[in-house]
Amino acid sequence: YSTGDPMWSYFTAVAGQDGEVDAEELQRCLTQSGIHGSYSPFSLETCRVMIAMLDRDHTGKMGFNEFKELWAALNAWKQNFIMFDQDRSGTVEPHELGQAITAMGYRLSHQTLNAIVKRYSKNGRIYFDDYVACSVKLRALTDVLRRRDNMQQGFVNFAYDDFLQCTMAI
Amino acid sequence: YSTGDPMWSYFTAVAGQDGEVDAEELQRCLTQSGIHGSYSPFSLETCRVMIAMLDRDHTGKMGFNEFKELWAALNAWKQNFIMFDQDRSGTVEPHELGQAITAMGYRLSHQTLNAIVKRYSKNGRIYFDDYVACSVKLRALTDVLRRRDNMQQGFVNFAYDDFLQCTMAI
Ligand SMILES: [Ca+2]
Ligand SMILES: [Ca+2]
Ligand SMILES: [Ca+2]
Repeated sequence: YSTGDPMWSYFTAVAGQDGEVDAEELQRCLTQSGIHGSYSPFSLETCRVMIAMLDRDHTGKMGFNEFKELWAALNAWKQNFIMFDQDRSGTVEPHELGQAITAMGYRLSHQTLNAIVKRYSKNGRIYFDDYVACSVKLRALTDVLRRRDNMQQGFVNFAYDDFLQCTMAI
Repeated sequence: YSTGDPMWSYFTAVAGQDGEVDAEELQRCLTQSGIHGSYSPFSLETCRVMIAMLDRDHTGKMGFNEFKELWAALNAWKQNFIMFDQDRSGTVEPHELGQAITAMGYRLSHQTLNAIVKRYSKNGRIYFDDYVACSVKLRALTDVLRRRDNMQQGFVNFAYDDFLQCTMAI
C-alpha cells in the first residue's frame, strides 16, 4: 500500500493493532469515509454481509487488501445506483433493480428476479443500503457456486453442512 | 381462527383489507404484541427473513396461518434464549449460541458453528434479534435442503438460478 492512499487513513483509523476490521469497525470506517454520499450510511447488517463476501479465511474480519477490493466494488455499485435512480428520489423502483441486476451480468429467471426484488424492497422501493446488500449477496453467492462447479455445467452439489456454512454467513 | 384469539387482534390490526402482512407490517405487529419482552424489538431485516421462511407462494407477505406458525416458533426460540442467557445480561455468549443450535437438533461441524457464531455476534455477544434471525435462517435453509433431498442422502443438487432464488430471499 501507499501511505498517501486516502483509503489507508480511513482504514487504519479504525482497524487498530491487528490491522483488520470486524463488521462494527467496517461500519464506522465506511461511515467516516462518506462513500454513501447523500444516502443513509450502511447498516450493520449490510456491513456483515460485506465481510462475509470477502472473508475467505473465516475470521469474521477484513484486512486492507480486502477493504480495497470492497471499496472498488462499492464505488461501482454506487455509480450503478445513481444511474438507475434517474429521478434522484434516493431510491430505485422494483423494475429498475431487475434491470440493474441484469446490467451487472447476472442471467436470472423472471421468478428469481421477482423474489429478489420483493426481499430488498421497503414500501415498494429499493434504498441504497438494501441495493448494496443485494449486490454483495449476489456476488458472494455466485462466488460460492463458481468455486464449487468444477465442470462449469451450471449445477452444483452440496453436502448439508457445506451448504449451511456457505449460506448462513451470507 | 377464533375471534377471541389474542393473536388475531394483533394481526388484523395491521394486516388490513388483504389479510396479509408484509415485512414492515409484521415488524409493527410483533412490536405491538410485545413478544420481544425486555429485549429490543425485532429489526426489519429479521422480519424480512421471517416472511421469507414461511412465504411459500413468494408473495412477500404472510397470512394469519403462517403468522400463527411464526408465533409458535418465536415463543420456542425465546424460551431457548432465556434459558441460555443464564446471567440475564440480555445476550448469550458465542459458545452458548453453538450449544443452543445443537439443542435445536442441528448437527453441524465445528467450523460451520464457528462461522455462524461470528456472523451473528455483535461485539462478541449475541443479542435476541440476531439469535432469532439466526434461528429463522437455519430453519428456512434446512427446509430448502429437505425439500430438495428426495433421496435423504445428505446431499443436494442445485441449478444456479434455483440456488440463488432460495438463498437470496433468506
Ligand atoms: Ca428513483
Ligand atoms: Ca405469502
Ligand atoms: Ca448472558
